[in-house]
Amino acid sequence: MSSQKDHKLCMIPGPVEFHEDVLTSMSTLATSHVSPAFIPVFGESIQLLRKVFLTEKGQPFVVSGSGTLGWDMVSSNLVEPGEDALVLNTGYFGDSFSECLKVYGAKVTQVKSEIGERTTIQEVSDAISDKSYKIITITHVDTSTGVLADVKGISEVVKKQSPNTLIIVDGVCSVGCEELRFDEWGIDVVLTASQKALGVPPGLSILVASERAIEVFKNRKAPIPSYYASWAHWLPIMNAYESRKGMYFATPPVQLIYALNTSLKQITSIPLETRFEQHKKASNRIKDALDSLGLNFLPKNREAAANGMTAIYYPEGIQPADLLQKVASHNVVIAGGLHRAIATKYFRVGHMGISVTEPERKHLDTVISALTDSLKELGYSGK
Amino acid sequence: MSSQKDHKLCMIPGPVEFHEDVLTSMSTLATSHVSPAFIPVFGESIQLLRKVFLTEKGQPFVVSGSGTLGWDMVSSNLVEPGEDALVLNTGYFGDSFSECLKVYGAKVTQVKSEIGERTTIQEVSDAISDKSYKIITITHVDTSTGVLADVKGISEVVKKQSPNTLIIVDGVCSVGCEELRFDEWGIDVVLTASQKALGVPPGLSILVASERAIEVFKNRKAPIPSYYASWAHWLPIMNAYESRKGMYFATPPVQLIYALNTSLKQITSIPLETRFEQHKKASNRIKDALDSLGLNFLPKNREAAANGMTAIYYPEGIQPADLLQKVASHNVVIAGGLHRAIATKYFRVGHMGISVTEPERKHLDTVISALTDSLKELGYSGK
Repeated sequence: MSSQKDHKLCMIPGPVEFHEDVLTSMSTLATSHVSPAFIPVFGESIQLLRKVFLTEKGQPFVVSGSGTLGWDMVSSNLVEPGEDALVLNTGYFGDSFSECLKVYGAKVTQVKSEIGERTTIQEVSDAISDKSYKIITITHVDTSTGVLADVKGISEVVKKQSPNTLIIVDGVCSVGCEELRFDEWGIDVVLTASQKALGVPPGLSILVASERAIEVFKNRKAPIPSYYASWAHWLPIMNAYESRKGMYFATPPVQLIYALNTSLKQITSIPLETRFEQHKKASNRIKDALDSLGLNFLPKNREAAANGMTAIYYPEGIQPADLLQKVASHNVVIAGGLHRAIATKYFRVGHMGISVTEPERKHLDTVISALTDSLKELGYSGK
Repeated sequence: MSSQKDHKLCMIPGPVEFHEDVLTSMSTLATSHVSPAFIPVFGESIQLLRKVFLTEKGQPFVVSGSGTLGWDMVSSNLVEPGEDALVLNTGYFGDSFSECLKVYGAKVTQVKSEIGERTTIQEVSDAISDKSYKIITITHVDTSTGVLADVKGISEVVKKQSPNTLIIVDGVCSVGCEELRFDEWGIDVVLTASQKALGVPPGLSILVASERAIEVFKNRKAPIPSYYASWAHWLPIMNAYESRKGMYFATPPVQLIYALNTSLKQITSIPLETRFEQHKKASNRIKDALDSLGLNFLPKNREAAANGMTAIYYPEGIQPADLLQKVASHNVVIAGGLHRAIATKYFRVGHMGISVTEPERKHLDTVISALTDSLKELGYSGK
């Protein structure tokens, strides 16, 4: 850990701080992507992902790309041109998922929440009474607002009222830190990325699809409108590596997959439930501390707030650049706003992965002190 | 270098062996993708790419993904549905580029060479006399056959006979090891990947587009049929980072870009001409050694053969698995065949990057000895 002392602590909502062993895996010496050394590492990673997503038979995909690629992986494989998609929009990432779906020909209807509010079950129920949707998309945590969706509740009402609708979860900022039960809740796709609560540097688009989603894909009539994102290419690759065979479609990012393997082993070494609880507790600690300073949060209430990040309005009189720079002078990096309508009015703090699960690192103490001291130095006197 | 001693030398046509400093960059501690630490690293990498591609005003794109993504980056941005594309096919990668173009609606005509032959200038001249093509694609080195295309000659005839046709080069196995002069030869797009002669672990799709290609993109009428690969998203990102500002579309693979920066600085520290010569010389050395053993090459002659890799037929009586395993027992990894029609009949050796430019590592000696000894041990007695 001492080797990490000199750098600014990265407490943004991804990329997160990385474990030393994960970073060491990133420097794995040159290794062939079809070698007996690498194949079992990739194969085992695919299997370990099922444990993290809490699924027995879900099909993981691990693809070289940013989290953003996950939307193409969903939109180009599961929705045929002209089919209806319902997007539950709680921020920037709902806007973007909608745009992506439209590119691939979906007719998109959005349920847009006010900034800081989450979609209610009633809103979902009303929306799916109107029309029969091929898919419904839920941003589990919208990283732009820190709003946490009620995936379990939404899933229940969709299963009851519109059982054929595929339930898609954008879990980029939730997998590994928020309670998310793929099989138990009947989810069809969860997409995520490496650099958030999975604790791996950015560069992996990760997705798990239900058997039902794979069936829908296999029975699609329209041609697949993407080459790189086509499951027709990736399914055989995943199956090959899982059965410990090499196969080629695109060179996998060998070093990132070694890093993923290391992190997944760490994550699955304790029960997922413990991990969820740790993130809840850490989140409450951060939020209580900021609350006691008199700061206001974007999410309207604690129930609608993410556990892996916090979005906070600047107090009056504090300029965005001033706070971020002041916090950086305390060797901590936090993030500015991202939601287009209010980007300059709030900031974001990430609390995921080893910053939460390894309290001996004192990352939470460090970010709380840095924020408290910075605000004081900028003349903010609290409530 | 001693730290790399214990692993099997990776002499396949990508991923190649990586420099220690590149590997160290891969373990860069957690860093925000919009931090003052990272922005100049990304910005400088974009600028250094121009030097490697020998272009003044070409527009680099650096995107999280495999080299395969480069075909989507070309096909979805430059070709509109129904437009004609001419693919010069010298192996597996010509087949795949054709498939990708078709996915995005191009009408594809192929000039297919016999295995081991390269497209002649006459064939190109004839093909472009028949029809007016929006783009022509050339696989500079088809990694499946080791055939080297005459990009300069082809470019000349296209410019003369069909000046509006955009010239696209798949340089995955050529950028950084084969002579390739973007501006001088009038190329419109070169796409490549990180893990070959650029000497960076896999996970970056890298592309440079000419001003003319960017104009064609900006004037396209049909909507862009991809979300993740759309230049409409990536152009502003590249411009932002180059002018030392952060901007968000998808989280860039921070650690891979640090590694790219390190490698590009090494590559541009000597004239590119020297690098091209080094690879030619290394290639001749490998090929002469194998020739003297009585082995036959896939490319019909030395002029049509790549300088960064060699594709060699197994001598009679030698089984594919036997040779690869025997060579591995000498701690060297080489690759099997990839071209579908003859995959079990040949093997491939890579000789790119530090294995070539840093002769003190003795990688060429090592692979030549390993091959010579292995063949002898398997009972092969030479010509």
